[in-house]
Amino acid sequence: MKGKASIAFENPPCILGTGCVVGKKEGEGPLGDRFDFVSEDPLFGKNNWEEAESAIQSQAAELALEHAGLTKEDIRYCFAGDLLGQLIATSFGLMNLQIPLFGLYGACSTMGESLNLGSMTVAAGYAPYVMCLASSHFASAEKQFRFPLEYGNQRPSCASWTVTGAGAVILGRGGDGIKITGITTGKIVDLGIKDSMNMGAAMAPAAADLIMQNLIDFDITPDYYDWIFTGDLGTVGQKALIDLLKEEGVSIEGFHRDCGIEIFDAEKQDTHAGGSGCGCSAAVLCSYILPMMQSGKWKRILFVPTGALLSPVSFNEGQSVPGIAHGVMLEKM
Amino acid sequence: MKGKASIAFENPPCILGTGCVVGKKEGEGPLGDRFDFVSEDPLFGKNNWEEAESAIQSQAAELALEHAGLTKEDIRYCFAGDLLGQLIATSFGLMNLQIPLFGLYGACSTMGESLNLGSMTVAAGYAPYVMCLASSHFASAEKQFRFPLEYGNQRPSCASWTVTGAGAVILGRGGDGIKITGITTGKIVDLGIKDSMNMGAAMAPAAADLIMQNLIDFDITPDYYDWIFTGDLGTVGQKALIDLLKEEGVSIEGFHRDCGIEIFDAEKQDTHAGGSGCGCSAAVLCSYILPMMQSGKWKRILFVPTGALLSPVSFNEGQSVPGIAHGVMLEKM
Repeated sequence: MKGKASIAFENPPCILGTGCVVGKKEGEGPLGDRFDFVSEDPLFGKNNWEEAESAIQSQAAELALEHAGLTKEDIRYCFAGDLLGQLIATSFGLMNLQIPLFGLYGACSTMGESLNLGSMTVAAGYAPYVMCLASSHFASAEKQFRFPLEYGNQRPSCASWTVTGAGAVILGRGGDGIKITGITTGKIVDLGIKDSMNMGAAMAPAAADLIMQNLIDFDITPDYYDWIFTGDLGTVGQKALIDLLKEEGVSIEGFHRDCGIEIFDAEKQDTHAGGSGCGCSAAVLCSYILPMMQSGKWKRILFVPTGALLSPVSFNEGQSVPGIAHGVMLEKM
Repeated sequence: MKGKASIAFENPPCILGTGCVVGKKEGEGPLGDRFDFVSEDPLFGKNNWEEAESAIQSQAAELALEHAGLTKEDIRYCFAGDLLGQLIATSFGLMNLQIPLFGLYGACSTMGESLNLGSMTVAAGYAPYVMCLASSHFASAEKQFRFPLEYGNQRPSCASWTVTGAGAVILGRGGDGIKITGITTGKIVDLGIKDSMNMGAAMAPAAADLIMQNLIDFDITPDYYDWIFTGDLGTVGQKALIDLLKEEGVSIEGFHRDCGIEIFDAEKQDTHAGGSGCGCSAAVLCSYILPMMQSGKWKRILFVPTGALLSPVSFNEGQSVPGIAHGVMLEKM
C-alpha cells in the first residue's frame, strides 16, 4: 500500500507481450503503421458489430500470447471488459480461451482497471501470467449509446470518435522489460456535467483527481514522468484537465498527452475532439507507449485511462455523467 | 495458487460485517425475518427503478459499515457490480462513498467475482479492509432484459424472478469469525442453450464446471462442505446441475442448495423456478448463509454465484446464453 489509493509493488510485474488490432480509420491515423493488425473490413468478417468487436478481442488476445511466447493454458486469469451492456463483446470474444475470467466495467477506463487488478494479482504471486484486455468498436458503441449509424446524425465539435480496436497485455512475474511499478485506483468523481456528447469535460475531473492522488501518494511531481498519458479526454478534456490541476497548484503542461488525441488526425479524419472508447487507450498503450518505452525513448509513464459512467438509460433519465480513472505506473528498468 | 483455477489463502480474510436490503416480496418469503431491512416501497423513495437499485446498494453498504464498526474512510477498495448496462446502479449507488472502485460484471455471479477479488486483495496485504457488493432489482432487470412491467407478459414456468435486493460484505485481515479460506475462479461455459427464459439450464454447466474444478483443485469430495450453495439456478437448474455432475461421477445430492430456491416460496409467491439476479445470492449470503455459519450450525460452505452472460442485444442477435460461476470457500474457524 502507498498513500490513500495506491500500491507500490515490491516485485513489479513485467509486460511480456502485447497484441493490438484496430479498424481501417485507426489504420489511417498517425499511429497507423504501428498497430499489429489493421482490418479493412469494419465487420472483421462477422455478421454484426458486436460479433465484430468480439473478433477484435479474440485476435488481440491471440497476438499477445504469440508475442509473449505463451499459450492460453499458461494464463491463469483474464481481466477484460468492453463498453457494451452486459459486456457481450468480452463474453463472446474470450469464451474460446477457456481462461478463468474477471469481467470488468470501468467504461473507457477499463484497460486501467484491468492492469490494476492484473498487476496486483501477479505481484501477489497468485498467478505466473495474466492477460489484461479491453476493446471498443465505433459502430457497436454508436448503436449502444447514441444513434443508429443509418441516421447519419451530426456530432458536436466537442464529441469524440469511438475507436475500433482492442489491446491485450500479458503480465508475468519474470522478465526484464517494462514493469508496472505501482498503481493508483480511482474513485467516481461527479461534477454534475450532463452533456453526454462532451465526455472529455465529464471525465477530466476524475483524471485530475487520479493524477493528484498519484502525485501525493508517491510524493512526486509531474516531471517524475516522461509523460502522463490520459485515455480519451480529447482536446476539450485536455484543456479542462490542465486547468483543474492548475487550480490545485500543479502544472502538467509539457508532461501531458492523451491517447484520444494521438490516435487520430482530428482535422484530416473529422474526429472532432479525438478518439475515445476502451479500445483507444488499450490500442495506444500497446502500439505506441510501450514500444516507445521499449526503445528506451521514454523511461517513466503514468498511464491513466479515463471513463465516463453513463448508460443510455441514465442519460435519458437526466442523470449526470460521472467519471472515473485508473492509474498505472510504467517504468523501463 | 492451488490446482488449475483456485487459490488457498495462507492468511484467510475474515468477514467483518454485512448489510442486506431487500424488497417487499423478498420480505414475504421464507427468509423474510432475516434481512437487515425490507422496504415496503419498491421505488425505495426514488423516481425510477434504476435510482431505486442504487438506493438499495447505498443502504446495504452503509449497514455493512455500521455492522463492521467501520467508516467509509477505512475501506481501501470497493468491488461491486449489478446487472444493468454500464453498471449504472453501482455508479450512482456508490458514488457518495468516495472509495476507489473496481466495477465488475459477472451477471448474477457478480457477488462471487467481487468476493474472489476482494479476498485476493486483503490476503495479499494490499488493503486492511475492502467492501464486496452486488445488487439487482426486479423492475430494473425486467426493463433491461425483458418487457416493460406494464405489458403484464406471461412467464414460462422455467423462468426465474429477479430478486430486489443487495448484499454488502466487509472483508478484513484481522478477526476470528468466518473466513474465506480459498476461491475458485470460473471460466465461460457455453453448451449452446438459447432460451433466455431458462437461465437455470443455461448456468448449470458453468456451476458444474466450477464445482468440479474446486473439488479437483482442493482434492476434496462434496461432503467436505456442509452445503454447496449455488446462486440462482432455481429448480430447473438444480436438476440439471445434479445430472451434469452425476455424469462426471460426482453426487452432490444432499449437499446442494440454491439461493434462488431458498429466497422465495415458489408456489405461494408465484416465482416459478426461483429467485435470480446478483442480489439473490448476495442477499441470501448475508442474511442466511453467514448467520447460520456464525451460529455454528454450518462450518464449511462453498458459495457459488452463477451468471448468465446474455444481453438484450446478444439475445436478439440469436446468440446462445453462456454461463459463468465463481466459487468462494467459507469456513467458520
